[in-house]
Amino acid sequence: MPPPPALTATRGAVRRLLGSVITGDAVAVACSGGPDSLALAAAAAHVGLRRGLQVHGLVVDHGLQAQSAEVAQRTAEQLSGLGLRSQVLPVQVSGPGGPEAAARRARYAALGSARPAGAPVLLGHTLDDQAETVLLGLGRGSGARSLRGMAESDPPWVRPFLGVRRETTEQACRELGLPPWHDPHNVDPTFTRVRLRTEVLPLLEDVLGGGAGASLARTADQLREDSAVLDGFAAEVRERVEAAGGLDAAALAEAPAAIRRRVLRSWLLDRGVPELSDAHLRAADDLVGSWRGQGGRALPGDFVLRREHGTLLVEAAGRKPPNG
Amino acid sequence: MPPPPALTATRGAVRRLLGSVITGDAVAVACSGGPDSLALAAAAAHVGLRRGLQVHGLVVDHGLQAQSAEVAQRTAEQLSGLGLRSQVLPVQVSGPGGPEAAARRARYAALGSARPAGAPVLLGHTLDDQAETVLLGLGRGSGARSLRGMAESDPPWVRPFLGVRRETTEQACRELGLPPWHDPHNVDPTFTRVRLRTEVLPLLEDVLGGGAGASLARTADQLREDSAVLDGFAAEVRERVEAAGGLDAAALAEAPAAIRRRVLRSWLLDRGVPELSDAHLRAADDLVGSWRGQGGRALPGDFVLRREHGTLLVEAAGRKPPNG
Repeated sequence: MPPPPALTATRGAVRRLLGSVITGDAVAVACSGGPDSLALAAAAAHVGLRRGLQVHGLVVDHGLQAQSAEVAQRTAEQLSGLGLRSQVLPVQVSGPGGPEAAARRARYAALGSARPAGAPVLLGHTLDDQAETVLLGLGRGSGARSLRGMAESDPPWVRPFLGVRRETTEQACRELGLPPWHDPHNVDPTFTRVRLRTEVLPLLEDVLGGGAGASLARTADQLREDSAVLDGFAAEVRERVEAAGGLDAAALAEAPAAIRRRVLRSWLLDRGVPELSDAHLRAADDLVGSWRGQGGRALPGDFVLRREHGTLLVEAAGRKPPNG
Repeated sequence: MPPPPALTATRGAVRRLLGSVITGDAVAVACSGGPDSLALAAAAAHVGLRRGLQVHGLVVDHGLQAQSAEVAQRTAEQLSGLGLRSQVLPVQVSGPGGPEAAARRARYAALGSARPAGAPVLLGHTLDDQAETVLLGLGRGSGARSLRGMAESDPPWVRPFLGVRRETTEQACRELGLPPWHDPHNVDPTFTRVRLRTEVLPLLEDVLGGGAGASLARTADQLREDSAVLDGFAAEVRERVEAAGGLDAAALAEAPAAIRRRVLRSWLLDRGVPELSDAHLRAADDLVGSWRGQGGRALPGDFVLRREHGTLLVEAAGRKPPNG
């Protein structure tokens, strides 16, 4: 008898990446205990152990909720029961950008350190997570960059379930008799992502006649491929126009606006300018695409971009002479 | 005293395009009588008549609603009162694709024929219309193509108000004492666009903390610029790989997937294949990017794409010999 569809789907999603994205003799699975990553751990165990892979289960304990240590311990035991070499990673969540961003940083750092050398780390993000990420990106309004969502492979991170629905992972856990942990944060409407999941996506599915989640995920795939081409094109242009700490504005002006803004963005980020919005990049590009002798442009982090003798230069505002 | 902000905004939006997109000595404005196009007609009259332009007002009567002839007549009189040379264009709405699509076809055909030779036709689409168009595109899931929205200039069509909020056009009509017509279709929830406007966008604004409409419009701008670059790149690749009715598959395989699909799309559309979805293009691209001797791919309109001796060929399925 074939296995139930949810197990075929989750195992197939992992199997599909063996040999291409999942290489070597060891693989790690990051598991919160939730249905997505628990089903992923089970699928990786089923597929990987048969191929003689070492399958490691990494459980991060963020220490942010009461009983988080117990949840992590119980999850690690579930993973051991599936045949994984499981390990709890306690982390300290701190630093800038709010608790969600700090938890993400701590989590990825711990997973990156704890994985076996060279091993990929599988993450349980589903098609529904991808759709939510695209909707979050819509709110930022920074075009393809904010809409392209998460990549299937971004070494060492691998996301086998970006084409799998969340409900399929829940069904897989039921089939396997694995009770998942339900993070109370996942239903807390103070998180934007929770409201996108519980209010916006269901309404969009209703209004657009179904398939909105899958459409959003498909859109992310396409925009990621488009971005790769545009970023590659921009990198070539940047090589041609960059010289001695500046950019040749006249040479850059020959590129289309979409490429110019990408060149400016990567160059400015490399020079230490933080958090560039679309508006900043359009203002910066005025010195290239709409040049009529105007003065410098203020950029985040107290930087100033100016055009002098045909060359774009960026400097910290403090370093500029008082009457310069 | 300066004019009220709504008039400054609407007039400025038209003035900004004078000489670049709006050229020649005549311009036409398409006007339904609704607040968007009525404010546009008023702004075009204010700005254009001062510059010595002939400003024509074109009012399409679709004949789909009771009293549509009276509404059109009243709107034409409002336009005449503003100093426009106004004209009612009765059209027959028929043909394939549902009443909305048929009405759009009939409207654009009538406007295109009635405009003074060579004159641009201004359309009243606002930032809110653009945001709704992007959301509609999300439901199609065809990437940048479905999300890039409407272009500001797509000769002879010009949309000066893509950066103007709908409420600004309503305010402009109030300032001018111009009572607009309120199309009952604009509040009829059987139309997907109406539900996007009245339910989805307000919820998105609430969840994402405001600015969702503007973000969607900004996203459209960026994706349109990205698309122009990618389409240009694909056109160059197509020129290199197209020969004698087919495409050189090996040469095409060297291009990135995002470019290959664009080349395939434009080539297949030119060969008469209708309505290509992302799934069709990915299946077609398998014959290029994942070639392992597989058979032909069925495409819409009873076409078949096959690879023979390294060349991609497309033919109507009926023309293929029975055992071919």
